[in-house]
Amino acid sequence: MRYSQIFVPTLREAPGDAAIASHQLMFRTGMIRRLANGLFAYLPVGLRSLRKVERIAREEMDAIGSQEIKPTVMAPGELWKESGRWETMGEGLLRVKNRLGGDFVVSPTAEEVFTALIRDELSSYRQLPLSLYQINTKYRDEIRPRYGVMRGREFIMKDAYSWHCDEASLDKTYQDMGKAYRRIFKRCGLSVFSVRADSGTMGGSGSEEFMVESVIGDNTLLLCKDCGYAANVEKAGCKPDYQVPASLNAAKALADSVPPPERIDTPAVKTIEELCAFLKVDARSFIKTLIYRAVNVELDLSTAPGMVKSEKRRAPSGETHRGGAPESYAEAFFAVCVRGDLDVNEVKLASILKASEVALAADTDVERFTGAPVGFAGPLGLTTIPVIADESVTAMHDGICGALAKDQHYAHVAYGRDFSPWLVADVRVVKSGDCCPLCGGELYEKKGNELGHIFKLGYKYTASMGVSYLDENGKNRVPIMGSYGIGIDRTLASIIEEHHDERGIIWPMTVAPYHVIIIPIKYEGSVKIAADQIASTLENTGIEVLLDDRNERPGVKFNDADLLGIPCRVVIGDKNLALDNPQVEVKHRNENDSRLVPLNMVAHELTAFVYGKITQLNL
Amino acid sequence: MRYSQIFVPTLREAPGDAAIASHQLMFRTGMIRRLANGLFAYLPVGLRSLRKVERIAREEMDAIGSQEIKPTVMAPGELWKESGRWETMGEGLLRVKNRLGGDFVVSPTAEEVFTALIRDELSSYRQLPLSLYQINTKYRDEIRPRYGVMRGREFIMKDAYSWHCDEASLDKTYQDMGKAYRRIFKRCGLSVFSVRADSGTMGGSGSEEFMVESVIGDNTLLLCKDCGYAANVEKAGCKPDYQVPASLNAAKALADSVPPPERIDTPAVKTIEELCAFLKVDARSFIKTLIYRAVNVELDLSTAPGMVKSEKRRAPSGETHRGGAPESYAEAFFAVCVRGDLDVNEVKLASILKASEVALAADTDVERFTGAPVGFAGPLGLTTIPVIADESVTAMHDGICGALAKDQHYAHVAYGRDFSPWLVADVRVVKSGDCCPLCGGELYEKKGNELGHIFKLGYKYTASMGVSYLDENGKNRVPIMGSYGIGIDRTLASIIEEHHDERGIIWPMTVAPYHVIIIPIKYEGSVKIAADQIASTLENTGIEVLLDDRNERPGVKFNDADLLGIPCRVVIGDKNLALDNPQVEVKHRNENDSRLVPLNMVAHELTAFVYGKITQLNL
Repeated sequence: MRYSQIFVPTLREAPGDAAIASHQLMFRTGMIRRLANGLFAYLPVGLRSLRKVERIAREEMDAIGSQEIKPTVMAPGELWKESGRWETMGEGLLRVKNRLGGDFVVSPTAEEVFTALIRDELSSYRQLPLSLYQINTKYRDEIRPRYGVMRGREFIMKDAYSWHCDEASLDKTYQDMGKAYRRIFKRCGLSVFSVRADSGTMGGSGSEEFMVESVIGDNTLLLCKDCGYAANVEKAGCKPDYQVPASLNAAKALADSVPPPERIDTPAVKTIEELCAFLKVDARSFIKTLIYRAVNVELDLSTAPGMVKSEKRRAPSGETHRGGAPESYAEAFFAVCVRGDLDVNEVKLASILKASEVALAADTDVERFTGAPVGFAGPLGLTTIPVIADESVTAMHDGICGALAKDQHYAHVAYGRDFSPWLVADVRVVKSGDCCPLCGGELYEKKGNELGHIFKLGYKYTASMGVSYLDENGKNRVPIMGSYGIGIDRTLASIIEEHHDERGIIWPMTVAPYHVIIIPIKYEGSVKIAADQIASTLENTGIEVLLDDRNERPGVKFNDADLLGIPCRVVIGDKNLALDNPQVEVKHRNENDSRLVPLNMVAHELTAFVYGKITQLNL
Repeated sequence: MRYSQIFVPTLREAPGDAAIASHQLMFRTGMIRRLANGLFAYLPVGLRSLRKVERIAREEMDAIGSQEIKPTVMAPGELWKESGRWETMGEGLLRVKNRLGGDFVVSPTAEEVFTALIRDELSSYRQLPLSLYQINTKYRDEIRPRYGVMRGREFIMKDAYSWHCDEASLDKTYQDMGKAYRRIFKRCGLSVFSVRADSGTMGGSGSEEFMVESVIGDNTLLLCKDCGYAANVEKAGCKPDYQVPASLNAAKALADSVPPPERIDTPAVKTIEELCAFLKVDARSFIKTLIYRAVNVELDLSTAPGMVKSEKRRAPSGETHRGGAPESYAEAFFAVCVRGDLDVNEVKLASILKASEVALAADTDVERFTGAPVGFAGPLGLTTIPVIADESVTAMHDGICGALAKDQHYAHVAYGRDFSPWLVADVRVVKSGDCCPLCGGELYEKKGNELGHIFKLGYKYTASMGVSYLDENGKNRVPIMGSYGIGIDRTLASIIEEHHDERGIIWPMTVAPYHVIIIPIKYEGSVKIAADQIASTLENTGIEVLLDDRNERPGVKFNDADLLGIPCRVVIGDKNLALDNPQVEVKHRNENDSRLVPLNMVAHELTAFVYGKITQLNL
């Protein structure tokens, strides 16, 4: 391709709102232009790289037997009402009414549409497992789109969905997808780490996020310095710094020599810090007890104490289930205990309770349940609401806790002997410096940006949308489902984030818009002949060549070549051609020095180099 | 590809609402499924053919130097307000408000977005001409979507736009596009004819539509039996069956021996038919005069008589021009004369007046302008409004017309002698049986369906949206623009319309989802070995193979193969393999008989056949 024939409006300066390298460089290279806030047009050079990322995603999906289809971008609102997400998705979902008053959404994801498609076709277990995907336009009505295509409103997503007879089959596809995702990112030259994450509004359990490290990442991750462990702070675990008793009896035994609970006066002392100072002990000695209010709790609370205030709500019979489970508690309160130096992770808590929301209860609720002002809650004698204890509490056999009375605490409190929570679970916040749950190594935090996400969705969509098939025994069954997404634009931008320097992009060979740029110092005479000849030889072997035939100063051409990040540069000048053994100058974008290569060798050498790099990335 | 591995839910019956072959067959073959009225999902087999049509369009665009870009599907409403189409486009334009109250459209076409993109980049004449295209999702809020993807709401369009310094450059690109379009349709195996058409709401003049003949076509076309002439009825011309006088004096001379106009009584006679019967003459003797009301007239009427009632409207200074020209007449009335046996073509009339709308005037307006009841209008003495005469009237030197008084007509009326219209133009309806304007051959009508359209847009968008560049002399100038579109889904459906029989589709090789289907009678033993071997040999040469490995009866497999329309079928059975010279059965989808081909020859023969067919279509 001749440079003069392509529309590639490079710029010296990036727009003022471009805060990150990829946004700046995609503008400066003329890869993209802004149409409106969060809406970007890909120009020719940008589109070439975008399509290469798409192609890599497509090849890896095809390789694991997922099949490409193409539903519409505008999706019937009716389907989103069936799944319940028409109501639950919030304002990020762009809802549209057409001229006839029909409801539509501009698809941000496509669980509903894919599920509706297979619902009408699925009859027998013989058709399962089935895995379908699309690479298509998506829209999320971001309130603050930022960082160029990294967080735009309209974008391209590769989204796949699968349906299975059983969890083992789902797990196999889930594992295949995970491997395919790792290959996709590797082929794009990206350093990705995967983390287990909370699956958020997608429903179901079992999910993995594929992240790149990024200063603008909106995920806080905990990673182990020693092993490969990585987790979103919302789900991260850690190795306990205490001995978990094997049983309730073992816990009791630990308290053998501890005196019985003793009520102590703690006048005007409310916070853990004040209590530590007052009693001259460490925060680790306290059983911190917090009262939480949870909304739409799907966990079965029938055995929980004090459930008088919480009434189970049933879906009206005959109606399609909307917004999740058929039965849930509209509101429920819980006392959550954790060792005094630790904090409660509300995402973990919500996940355990299968609640749509959890938050600290209002002071009036705290007083109502504990019979005392805020600051004196404790598990001893608390029968008005269920008590949930973090695992850290199970190791406490001589603790201090609030005594459900103003200015009163208990000392010498032992888990198992003096109180037994309704539920023991991991609800603590894990922080930098905690120990890796796998190897015990030190955990550290970093910010990550999510590029891909694979989910085991469970039955959320198939059940709510009434999908079924006949099993081997002719019995009607609901398939289990998975969903798997990659943001294509964001992947492209992340490649630039990882591969650039102060002069421009440094493309990995697989996703470079062109493999080789040829710069004739002046495009005329023998230089022109040599340039044309190298270009055509390379193109005949499938190498993508950009020939800078512009009538510009060499400096301008060199700067544009560096900015565009074409991996290989060939400079052709009069002097080197006039030698007995005519030579050209070859420089790789990621190296500082150029080399002279004989004219008659350069095409051969570059072909081998380009294919070598591609093979290496695709391995 | 193994048949058992693809999701291709074939059906015996098409849905009841599928009225045309392509809609029926795309459903029955599992190419598409319906998501909602006018919204269809392409399943794997359908997507393969769709992508092939896209690829052909892409290759031909690239070949003429148009460059692919990818703007967003959601377009800023602001741009559509700049061009004026936010107001003028009607309800087919889906307007959307996002969560922040911003206006957007779901793009039905992209003149605005492309123009906005180049507006910010264009500075010098050196950048022109420039031609850009996209292959992307479009949406039109059709009130009655019908015929499957032939007239759906969401669809894929290849739309290109070009900008130029002058008309000669625009004309070159316009011609290149026309050639590229012919090649695209030829490569798809389509019989397309091109017609000059009214350019409708697109603005500008010079346009060509690419049509396929179709019973459901919404265009009436006039075609010449002898030469290649074809035109939309809205624009069609014809060879006059009268002698057009060379000048007004020549017209006067014709009337030399005609007596002067004579007022005659025609009591209770209103229609041309009644008048013919009453005066015992042919309708061809009458000068039919109709009063029209036109809206938003951009034609300069400053020299027109009777313009007291029509006031020129100027765009408020300082504001961006909206909705076309800076000056127009909100409303104007015209008397249109045509020979009594002919009709007035309102689309031609609107085009001449540069009006957004024309319609017969209300009776009260007719009475106001003619001073007589409806039925007695005529050009003699009519000074209240401009008179427009069809060319047919210029040959009339002894005609009859209304006398602007109840129950009165004039006889012996001569064009040029007794009246001179303000404007003479072709405003007649051309019908089946009229003579071709090129060769004089007989014209006939047929229904056509539009697949593509190329337009010379002129300055409509570049002027209203403020695009400019500096010419060689440093002078600011507005570029001239063209626009070129092809409906990809509609092209695909039209291929099926042209290539099917009662058993299913008969794909042209270039767009077939697979080139060869291999049907083992039973996929086991030596038959399986032979089938696998033929498949892998073919695939190694780039042939796309579908291997029907299903455990189905041969009849089911044959029916599906015919339905899917794969061009070549290979049947492998025990008996033919057991011969001394093992053979397989080869049948082409468009032939009735199969042939036996030696096993060791079949792959070679089919490879040659497939590439031969592709080459032939791509010639």
